[in-house]
Amino acid sequence: MAVGPDTFPTMEAIAGFRLGTASAGIKTPGRRDLVVMEIAAGSSVAGVFTRNAFCAAPVTVAKQHMQATAPRYLLINTGNANAGTGQQGMEDALSCCASLATAVGVEQQSVLPYSTGVIGEKLAVDKIEAAIPAALEALSPQGWADAAWGILTTDTRPKGATRVLEYQGKQLRISGISKGSGMICPNMATMLGFVATDAAVDQAALQGLLADAAERTFNRISVDGDTSTNDACMLVATGQSGLAVTPDTPLWREFSDAIEAVLLELAQAIIRDGEGATKFVTVAVERAASQAEALQTAYAVAHSPLVKTALYASDPNWGRILATVGRAGIESLDVAALQIYLDDVCIVENGGRAASYTEAEGQRVMAEEEILIRIVLNRGEHAEQVWTTDLSRDYVTINADYRS
Amino acid sequence: MAVGPDTFPTMEAIAGFRLGTASAGIKTPGRRDLVVMEIAAGSSVAGVFTRNAFCAAPVTVAKQHMQATAPRYLLINTGNANAGTGQQGMEDALSCCASLATAVGVEQQSVLPYSTGVIGEKLAVDKIEAAIPAALEALSPQGWADAAWGILTTDTRPKGATRVLEYQGKQLRISGISKGSGMICPNMATMLGFVATDAAVDQAALQGLLADAAERTFNRISVDGDTSTNDACMLVATGQSGLAVTPDTPLWREFSDAIEAVLLELAQAIIRDGEGATKFVTVAVERAASQAEALQTAYAVAHSPLVKTALYASDPNWGRILATVGRAGIESLDVAALQIYLDDVCIVENGGRAASYTEAEGQRVMAEEEILIRIVLNRGEHAEQVWTTDLSRDYVTINADYRS
Repeated sequence: MAVGPDTFPTMEAIAGFRLGTASAGIKTPGRRDLVVMEIAAGSSVAGVFTRNAFCAAPVTVAKQHMQATAPRYLLINTGNANAGTGQQGMEDALSCCASLATAVGVEQQSVLPYSTGVIGEKLAVDKIEAAIPAALEALSPQGWADAAWGILTTDTRPKGATRVLEYQGKQLRISGISKGSGMICPNMATMLGFVATDAAVDQAALQGLLADAAERTFNRISVDGDTSTNDACMLVATGQSGLAVTPDTPLWREFSDAIEAVLLELAQAIIRDGEGATKFVTVAVERAASQAEALQTAYAVAHSPLVKTALYASDPNWGRILATVGRAGIESLDVAALQIYLDDVCIVENGGRAASYTEAEGQRVMAEEEILIRIVLNRGEHAEQVWTTDLSRDYVTINADYRS
Repeated sequence: MAVGPDTFPTMEAIAGFRLGTASAGIKTPGRRDLVVMEIAAGSSVAGVFTRNAFCAAPVTVAKQHMQATAPRYLLINTGNANAGTGQQGMEDALSCCASLATAVGVEQQSVLPYSTGVIGEKLAVDKIEAAIPAALEALSPQGWADAAWGILTTDTRPKGATRVLEYQGKQLRISGISKGSGMICPNMATMLGFVATDAAVDQAALQGLLADAAERTFNRISVDGDTSTNDACMLVATGQSGLAVTPDTPLWREFSDAIEAVLLELAQAIIRDGEGATKFVTVAVERAASQAEALQTAYAVAHSPLVKTALYASDPNWGRILATVGRAGIESLDVAALQIYLDDVCIVENGGRAASYTEAEGQRVMAEEEILIRIVLNRGEHAEQVWTTDLSRDYVTINADYRS
């Protein structure tokens, strides 16, 4: 139950970045559930984190550690989110960091922890600590595919994206992996992204680049700009290509576009693997009076259970889309002035069903696995797009049975 | 698939108010799908309508007609919402009004139309016009039960509420019916309510009373305060009890409480019959810093697909409730200061699982058919509550198959 081909790419190794994966048996014996990522000294590290008020202990620790010193290791476990675990959760996250730090001989604060899985259960610190040596043993620049498996929870497939840029006879590499699949309500599902490049980028510029790119990618598959208790996206620049990229160089635009393309591919892969997903849906709002209005309209459609069940049924029930736009809260909306399209088929104009619309045309588009819902408000020049899935019986089954 | 016993009450007849039901064959041959309500001359009539920008033709017509003259007839059809139908829809709604007006000898503007059903298909005006005589023939003060059936769409049971007030040796009667069942996203499902009383109430006072009472009842089972293309709730006061009720009399409080109780019972009946519903869920937020904050938090929980699937699974997955409160957008939320309860069981305090909580206690509450989720924010003195259902496989099935 995922949309599109399952093609994990051949990942480019990133000099100065190694990944090691092990089975700690945190929730399911034998499952790969612990990943260590090693960052060479001298690298820049940027991160964006959940805005949920109940952010998980590892998020709090990761943010504190990033402010204290340059990160050298990322420690990721699945099977348990270590969220809603209070003071005990903080101590557990710190214990895991300390174990890894001791094993590799760095200070505790240069280890950043990440957890994903069930909320509210105590972290199995002993299992994680026992598996750290195996993860370190496995460290390799070729460790991407194993790590992509090691960070999954209810995902059905690993997610990776990779790019090579050529510049003045030199090469720049970018590789990244992501996880997440609770996609009706992505603000509740943990999304994780880990991206590394061998470009040399100043930390402040890297953080700005990540924040911008995540806003247009990971934050466009998210409800109301909100996030789960554990969401995080990290961007590491090791500098070992020898190519420096700064906002003042000609390379900057090309590089930042490539970073955004990798994040978009990783974010969209999360949607394609959405729980129970049978459709990959782009909701694009054009000619809105403001960016906020465009986004609000796109989210209203992307989150409507009635629209999503119609998508699941491949039913061109354009009335549900129309009604959702109507209640999206757009001030003084002139319903006669807007158009709504399914791909290239105009379904709504002049306040009702488009004169040119036929059920056969609507059916043709809805039968596709990838669908574009395009809403042209004709109120201004702002546009936004978000990505979502349909709502299937399997979504309910997966989420009703997840803990049992 | 509805929650609680299916007990349609013995409805009190309201002097000056008659109801007649017929089968017009609008969508399903033989189904009761057309209702006429006759209001005695001299009555006051109040109404609240959808705020959806794409409001349906009958809503536009009903509002215009109410401003023009005192309503004498309500004409309700199911099987077709006459929404998203543009200019043709307006003409069709007016044609139906004209047919009824001609048949009974009143001016066209004293007829108000209501439609519910599929959006975007042309209204079968001829079928409706052909069935109007049969509906008029059936007019009776005892017509409530038939009418309660006649206004249903995907509902599985009729919904009615009735009250008698004694005052100074006289009796006041209130009776009402409602429909609606698309309850995950009630702003998209049409909710209709028709309530009549034999009290004598000034039109302005009646409108104020209805607006207030609907806000705390019908608008608390609704997403974001939004409504579908066709929602309407009408309150008719015939005055034929001979008892006048005005905001200055001692009777006013008792009367307005009774009206609100009837609306609440009708609104909650819609939730109990929510599509695929297996649970009736009250989300109560207490000690919020503002009314808006309380409502926003309650809606966030009531609309979370992850909370709703956990409710369906009878799984006390308190972590999902906690995470939803965390992303509800409450400014500077101190997560350590709040408590969350399932009925009488404290599930969250001090920023994590309550120390006293046991899975067995959570399981006991979640196994109930009616569940209270109580969130005590400890930030102020404002409270709100909303009512919702769980999210079941059947919800998806119903909404994926509705048009086919």
